[in-house]
Amino acid sequence: MILTVTLNTALDITYRVPALRPHTSHRVSEVTERPGGKGLNVARVLAALGHEVTVTGFTGGATGQVVQELLTGAPGVVDALVPVTGPTRRTIAVVDEQTGDTTQLNEPGPTVTPTEWSAFQEAYEDLLPSSTAVALCGSLPPGVPVGAYAVLVRAAKAAEVPVLLDTSGEALRRGVAARPDIIKPNAEELAELTGSHEPLRATQDARRRGARSVVASLGSQGLLAVTPEGRWRSTPPSRLHGNPTGAGDAAVAGLLSALVEKLPWPERLTRATALSTATVASPVAGEFDRGTYEELLGRVTVTGEVTAA
Amino acid sequence: MILTVTLNTALDITYRVPALRPHTSHRVSEVTERPGGKGLNVARVLAALGHEVTVTGFTGGATGQVVQELLTGAPGVVDALVPVTGPTRRTIAVVDEQTGDTTQLNEPGPTVTPTEWSAFQEAYEDLLPSSTAVALCGSLPPGVPVGAYAVLVRAAKAAEVPVLLDTSGEALRRGVAARPDIIKPNAEELAELTGSHEPLRATQDARRRGARSVVASLGSQGLLAVTPEGRWRSTPPSRLHGNPTGAGDAAVAGLLSALVEKLPWPERLTRATALSTATVASPVAGEFDRGTYEELLGRVTVTGEVTAA
Repeated sequence: MILTVTLNTALDITYRVPALRPHTSHRVSEVTERPGGKGLNVARVLAALGHEVTVTGFTGGATGQVVQELLTGAPGVVDALVPVTGPTRRTIAVVDEQTGDTTQLNEPGPTVTPTEWSAFQEAYEDLLPSSTAVALCGSLPPGVPVGAYAVLVRAAKAAEVPVLLDTSGEALRRGVAARPDIIKPNAEELAELTGSHEPLRATQDARRRGARSVVASLGSQGLLAVTPEGRWRSTPPSRLHGNPTGAGDAAVAGLLSALVEKLPWPERLTRATALSTATVASPVAGEFDRGTYEELLGRVTVTGEVTAA
Repeated sequence: MILTVTLNTALDITYRVPALRPHTSHRVSEVTERPGGKGLNVARVLAALGHEVTVTGFTGGATGQVVQELLTGAPGVVDALVPVTGPTRRTIAVVDEQTGDTTQLNEPGPTVTPTEWSAFQEAYEDLLPSSTAVALCGSLPPGVPVGAYAVLVRAAKAAEVPVLLDTSGEALRRGVAARPDIIKPNAEELAELTGSHEPLRATQDARRRGARSVVASLGSQGLLAVTPEGRWRSTPPSRLHGNPTGAGDAAVAGLLSALVEKLPWPERLTRATALSTATVASPVAGEFDRGTYEELLGRVTVTGEVTAA
């Protein structure tokens, strides 16, 4: 199975309001809830692609219970979340029905104790031997050491399990130094890591910092991959308008599923780009439409070159 | 004991953010939770005044569980909430730390089935014989008939328990027709009920519609009471700046506690005004400071006249 790690799981709540006016009172017209946190989103896409997937990370309190109940309803996703005392965070997306714009409010997450962090590491190491690949996703909750992803990357490598890291800031910087197989930063995360706003230069620099392969997601301009096997650029057929929520997580699922299927890089990028684009085009935030995805598979362009042997 | 009814209980969540900017993403710096809904707020103030108080209404889902756990920590409040399948609503108050202003997002609440509404009525009727007074507070959740408060007022009167109604809109209009002992509308609710923006005229009109006594809360201008025993106006010592959240609920608790203590109207109004003002002055939304309250008791002015016999 594929293992996804979400240390800062979330209950993602969406509120629709007729119009958001600061400093006034709003009656929410529609409330929807779903399990959130990048690794849980990645898992849902992997399961939809037919892969066996296990999710781990932390869960706590009443919100954690709701997340776990909602996960039970997600076919193909096995729940291996580790309990903590603090409550799983909520994220609130307030959608203004007039403009379609979203205002996001993210709670910081539970404070994880050193004992809870140790318990997680044990659970993670127990899961690695049966994992074909692992994705480490998202922000760290308070209390988890900033070098956490470096520890988890090293454990995966020791177990010879390919590991993809998708995070940002200092957690990414420290994690990259532990030499993950793939990182998937967006343009902003890549610039923050490397100091360069020029995607190709920044991607190459990120490899020098330790990542074996770097797949930079450049929004509507597709993906740029620099790997030991070569470098490629994948481009979706046309600039799509829609909700970018979950597009990066869909790309991670595309890369990871194609990796365990042992597909070459151009096919991995095609799949990741088609999934990501189908997610943007979907009317439901973070979901992708299978028909759109399959149609897009034939329309993604990949250009690039194989590294000379 | 005093009984308070909150059909649309809530988990009141407060988020502090450095500055609220619509259509951007915010990291919440502080999250606080407390049991909410007007009747629960009234109960907390009554308990702080030393009264035995029982709360009823609906509770459901993970949010309802949290509300009940938090209630367990409120000394002197007995939980007699009735379970429903739908989840108790959340209300989110987003406090902008830069301006101090609050943006409010209120979920509509669970949809209550006819069976659940019947179960509540039975539980309510079982509680009435041991109640010295009852407060019916706040909005109706979806599914509860708009005439609900009229039914609950009639049941209280049949059991000879004094009943105070604090709601708005059509629920208030229907409830008033069932002849509650006291209603406590604010200026806006009173204008909506009567069509008049002139407080004295509107208060008198509200009595003609069925309320035995009307106590209009006029914000920083205090309370205006028109009753069979006479009419009075109470005024706080000075215009206080602060957070008006819970001021109306504190006034209800003041009126109700003084009623069961058989105090005359001027003393009821003094207590309600002092509690309400102490709540506005409190740094914690919805709480009151006992010292401030006791000091204010001596500084509220009540003027008025007793009805000629």
